[in-house]
Amino acid sequence: MLELEAQLCQIKRGCEEVLLESDLREKLQAGRPLRVKAGFDPTAPDLHLGHTVLINKLRHFQDMGHQVLFLIGDFTGMIGDPSGKNVTRPPLTREQVLENARTYQEQVFKILDPEKTEVCFNSVWFDTLGAADMIRLAARHTVARMLERDDFAKRYTDGQPIAIHEFLYPLCQGYDSVALKADVELGGTDQKFNLLVGRELQKHYGQPPQCVLTLPLLEGTDGEKKMSKSLGNYIGIDEPPREIFGKLMSISDTLMWRYYELLSFRGEAEIARDKTEVAAGRNPRDLKEALAVEIVARFHGQVAAIAAREEFAARFRQGVLPDDMPEFILETEGAGLSILHALKQAALTASTSEAIRMIQQGGVKVDGERVGDKDLVLSAGATVVLQVGKRKFARVRIGGA
Amino acid sequence: MLELEAQLCQIKRGCEEVLLESDLREKLQAGRPLRVKAGFDPTAPDLHLGHTVLINKLRHFQDMGHQVLFLIGDFTGMIGDPSGKNVTRPPLTREQVLENARTYQEQVFKILDPEKTEVCFNSVWFDTLGAADMIRLAARHTVARMLERDDFAKRYTDGQPIAIHEFLYPLCQGYDSVALKADVELGGTDQKFNLLVGRELQKHYGQPPQCVLTLPLLEGTDGEKKMSKSLGNYIGIDEPPREIFGKLMSISDTLMWRYYELLSFRGEAEIARDKTEVAAGRNPRDLKEALAVEIVARFHGQVAAIAAREEFAARFRQGVLPDDMPEFILETEGAGLSILHALKQAALTASTSEAIRMIQQGGVKVDGERVGDKDLVLSAGATVVLQVGKRKFARVRIGGA
Repeated sequence: MLELEAQLCQIKRGCEEVLLESDLREKLQAGRPLRVKAGFDPTAPDLHLGHTVLINKLRHFQDMGHQVLFLIGDFTGMIGDPSGKNVTRPPLTREQVLENARTYQEQVFKILDPEKTEVCFNSVWFDTLGAADMIRLAARHTVARMLERDDFAKRYTDGQPIAIHEFLYPLCQGYDSVALKADVELGGTDQKFNLLVGRELQKHYGQPPQCVLTLPLLEGTDGEKKMSKSLGNYIGIDEPPREIFGKLMSISDTLMWRYYELLSFRGEAEIARDKTEVAAGRNPRDLKEALAVEIVARFHGQVAAIAAREEFAARFRQGVLPDDMPEFILETEGAGLSILHALKQAALTASTSEAIRMIQQGGVKVDGERVGDKDLVLSAGATVVLQVGKRKFARVRIGGA
Repeated sequence: MLELEAQLCQIKRGCEEVLLESDLREKLQAGRPLRVKAGFDPTAPDLHLGHTVLINKLRHFQDMGHQVLFLIGDFTGMIGDPSGKNVTRPPLTREQVLENARTYQEQVFKILDPEKTEVCFNSVWFDTLGAADMIRLAARHTVARMLERDDFAKRYTDGQPIAIHEFLYPLCQGYDSVALKADVELGGTDQKFNLLVGRELQKHYGQPPQCVLTLPLLEGTDGEKKMSKSLGNYIGIDEPPREIFGKLMSISDTLMWRYYELLSFRGEAEIARDKTEVAAGRNPRDLKEALAVEIVARFHGQVAAIAAREEFAARFRQGVLPDDMPEFILETEGAGLSILHALKQAALTASTSEAIRMIQQGGVKVDGERVGDKDLVLSAGATVVLQVGKRKFARVRIGGA
C-alpha cells in the first residue's frame, strides 16, 4: 500500500470535492481495505468515457488495496417511473436487470479488477423491506431539507410538479450505504446531495458516516457540454478502436489536458512536465496521440491501439494535418448539417456548387476519409476535420439544434 | 328506507360540507347499502361527546340501511412516531391495538348498530405491501399539492420541520378507501384534505370516488374551544351519569342549541319548534334537561338518565337555580383556580377571608354540592355554578393557562 499522503493525493486527483477529508484520512490511517461504493442505474449500461471518470477513480482505490462495491440500483429500476409519465423509464424485469448487469460487468472489468469488485443489487435488501420500513425511512428527512436539493428547488419554484416518491429515492440510495456499510461513496457532482443523505442515514443507524467524493462531469468532444449520448458528443468505450482514436485526435488542445487529468492513468508529475514542454513549443499532437493510444489500449488492448495509431497516420499520410487550422462552430437546426453547407460555411469552397464539384473530383475528406456522397450529413455534436484538396483544412463542430 | 330527499336531508344535517352532493345523490339513488367509512386512531380510545358527532352521523346512515366501516388505523399506530420526537406516540404492540379496539367497540356500540358495523384494521392490507408499493403510492401525489394542506403550508412557511413520512400518511389514509371500496367517508373538517386524497386515489385505481362528508369540531363545555380532553372542557361518554348530566346543565343556552343540532337525535322540525317557544318566553332550562336526559340515556340507559335528573334536581331543591345569573370568565395561570379566589373574583364574597368563613360555615356550593375544603381547586376549562348562601349565584368558567 502507498503511504498515506500519497494515497490521499492520488484519491483527490480530479475530484471536485472530498467530504470530509479528515474522515477519509482517518479511514485510510486505519490501514484496513475500505468499502468503496458507487451506484449505477441498470437502465443504461452503455458506458462512455464520461462514465469512466468515476470508474477510473474506483480503480485507483483498488490499486491501493481497497474493495469496490459496484451497486446496481435494480430495486428502483424494476419500479420504473411509477407515475407512468416518463415513458423512457419502463419498469425492468429481473431478467433485463441481470442482462444489463452482465453488460455492465463486461464493460467495467476493462477498468476494474474483478477480484476486488463486489457487484451488488439493492433489491436484495429492499425486497424484504415493508411499507412500514419505508415510512420509517421517510421519517429520517424533512421536506424542507429535500427541497434544498438544487433541482428540486428549481422545479418547486418553477411550479413543475415533483411527485412525492422522488423524495424517497435519495433516501433509498442513502439506505444502500447503510446496507453495504460503505466507507466511501463516489458520484458525479450532481449526486452530492444524495451522497450526503447516505452519510446522515449511516449516522442514524450507528455507523461511521461514509466519505463522499464527487467527480466532475466530463465535457464531451465539443469541449463544452457534458458528454452524453443524446448530445452526440460522446466516445463510447465499446466503439471500434479507429473511432475512439479518431474522436480523441479531433479534440481541442485545452480539452486534451482535461482528458489527461480525468482519463489518463499517467502520473500528475509527468503530465505537468508535458505541459511545460508544450508551453515551450513542443507539438501537442504527440501528446494527443499518446492519450488516444492509452485510452484505446484500455478498452481494446495495446495491439489494437498501435494499429489504430498507424491507421490514423496512414489516412493523413498524403496530407499531414497542419498544426494550426481554422476552427468553426457551424449551426444547424436539425440532426445534422449537409457536407455541402459545411464546406461553404467553413470557407473551404466558395459555393455549394463548388463543393459538389470538389466531391465529384474526389478532393474532399472528412477526418482523412474521402467523401464520395454529396448528400453526406455530418451529425450534430460531432467535431471533424474537413479537408479540400491538399492544403485547405478546417476543424468544425456541428452545433446541436 | 327513507325516500331519497329525506335521506339526503338527514345526512346533511350538521355537516360542514358534502363533496360532491351530486355523487352522493347518485349513490343513494342506486338503492344499494352504501359502504360508509370512518377512520379512528387506535391510540386514544377514550371517547367524548366531540367524537360522537361523527359517530352519530354513522348511526344515521345505519338507520337508512347502510353499512359502516369502522376503520382502526393500527398500521400507522404500530409505527408510532418514527422520528421518535413525539413521545406521546409510542409504537403500539398488536396486543395494545386489539385491546384499544375492544375499548372502542364497547363505547361506539352504545351508538352504532353492531349488525351494520364492520370493524376493520388497515394493517390487514398494509402489512402485505412492500417498500416498492409504498413508492408507487407516493408517486400518486405531488409535493406541491401536499404543501397546500393548511397545516403543512403553515409549518413550511414558519420553518417548522415536516418529516417526509408525514406526506405518506394522507396517502395511506386514502389507500384505505381503495382497500375498503368506500362509497362515503366521514371526518372532521380538519380531515378534509386527507378525505379528498382518498377520492383521488380511488379514481386512479378505477373505483367510483367516495363522497366526502366533513363534520364540525364540537365546541367544549366552555362554548369556545374545540372539545378536548387536554383542555378540560369535555364530557366523556364513559363518565358517570351525574357528571354528564351536571356538565350539560351548566352549558350556556347558545351552546345548548349547538349541542341539539349535533348531538341530539330529535328531529330538526321539533327542535325548530322548541326554539320558537323559547324565543316566545319558554324557560330553556327544561330543554337543557331534556337534552341531558337524552345524552345520558344514550350511554347509560333511560333509568340512569331519569335518576341523574332526579338527583340533580334534589341537589338544587333548597335553592332553585335562578334563570339568569351573572356569568364570569376567571383567568388562571395554572391548571386551575382556588375556590377562594373564584368566590372573590365572581364577587360572591368581598374577600378571600370572607370566602374561608363561608366555606367553614357550610354556605358554599359548587354545582349544588357543598364545599368542605377551603383548598379546593376548580379545574381550568370547567364551567360551574357557584353558590354562596341561598341567594347568591354565579356561573363561572375557569380559563386555561
